[in-house]
Amino acid sequence: MSNADLHLSSHISKQFNAELDDIRQRVLTMGGLVEQQVSEAVRALTEADGELGQQVANRDYKVNAMEVGIDEECIRVLARRQPAATDLRLIMAVVKTITDLERIGDEAEKIGRMAASLAANPTPAGSLSPVETMGRRVSSMVHRVLDAFARLDAEDALEIAKEDRKVDSEYDAISRQCLTFMLEDPRTIRPVMDLQWAARALERIGDHASNIGEYVIYLIQGKDVRHTSLAQMEAELEARNG
Amino acid sequence: MSNADLHLSSHISKQFNAELDDIRQRVLTMGGLVEQQVSEAVRALTEADGELGQQVANRDYKVNAMEVGIDEECIRVLARRQPAATDLRLIMAVVKTITDLERIGDEAEKIGRMAASLAANPTPAGSLSPVETMGRRVSSMVHRVLDAFARLDAEDALEIAKEDRKVDSEYDAISRQCLTFMLEDPRTIRPVMDLQWAARALERIGDHASNIGEYVIYLIQGKDVRHTSLAQMEAELEARNG
Repeated sequence: MSNADLHLSSHISKQFNAELDDIRQRVLTMGGLVEQQVSEAVRALTEADGELGQQVANRDYKVNAMEVGIDEECIRVLARRQPAATDLRLIMAVVKTITDLERIGDEAEKIGRMAASLAANPTPAGSLSPVETMGRRVSSMVHRVLDAFARLDAEDALEIAKEDRKVDSEYDAISRQCLTFMLEDPRTIRPVMDLQWAARALERIGDHASNIGEYVIYLIQGKDVRHTSLAQMEAELEARNG
Repeated sequence: MSNADLHLSSHISKQFNAELDDIRQRVLTMGGLVEQQVSEAVRALTEADGELGQQVANRDYKVNAMEVGIDEECIRVLARRQPAATDLRLIMAVVKTITDLERIGDEAEKIGRMAASLAANPTPAGSLSPVETMGRRVSSMVHRVLDAFARLDAEDALEIAKEDRKVDSEYDAISRQCLTFMLEDPRTIRPVMDLQWAARALERIGDHASNIGEYVIYLIQGKDVRHTSLAQMEAELEARNG
């Protein structure tokens, strides 16, 4: 199903069209900032750049302000335009998406703080590399899910939900590795705990990106796919497209 | 400001009234189940009752199903009734509240699983009691925030946001204690990590309860108080009531 099929742009009121476009654009801008926060937080962590970590943490208020602003705009549009069908679904999907984007911002802030703390406490050799891989994967998930939102691409949104399985298993592997480091050398407990928290924050970012993917599918299909298995989601997408 | 001032029940359409009442009632029912999940998860943890922990984890699907059902009902009402003003705010507050309730359910599920795992691995003497205290506090926060939602009590909702500060400092104390246990006796690392995760889940439940408190204030005041300091929220409530 392509963007055009959704007839998002076929309103009698040009003004209403402009309002919906503006909301979509603001979500993408907020998403762009959040994506930057995540990738800089991961960079701060893996390059032991405490200053960059602190900058990321200090910048989170911008993400929060964007969420509040978009929320208010959605409520104004709901009250003034009383949208139905796809337009209503768009607004509801936006309201939910920005909640998850804001929480991704919170996790980036935490990673930034961990990076600032870890810069002073060296971690065991080899412990950062799997976190870096995981960080790259979740950054790219955030990027791709925003792309799927912009292009209303249900297939790609589904791919992101699948990608989250990989993040979860990477997280499990890192947790086991952290436990091993601590058991082998208790002096590493402090920095390894920080690393564990950073990995946890990345795992949650993956969850939030996956939630946004589900809202994109909901927006396109008009069907709530949360708490549905990947196999079911895939079957339904195929049934629609086949 | 009392419930009556909001004129929630002054619609021309009796059917519309019934629909809004039904939505509110369903949120309270969902909240009741979530509250039970949290307190049973905490009990399973502190009484080392692995079976109860597993039961809690297995019951989470019910919470998920309730969320999806209420969400669908909200969208139906938005499309059919095109609510404005307070009714619109109620729907938006409900949509956000059930997201947080569902995530409290997820955290309870995790605690249930930790309880099942901890039942087989004894934790250091004295390590459970602060988690129990924290668990009681967050259970009561969930209970009180649902009460505030039912009675539209902004003052009580604000109290819950304050209570969350206590949860955060209890969490910090538990984390420091966990670190000490692990440093003193590395053989405790495994069970203490489980305890740390359970405390983390409780801390997040406190955050979610506090979010719901903010939606209650938003519903009553028509003002978004997220990312606002407690002092500011308090000043605004006083200005309204004074």
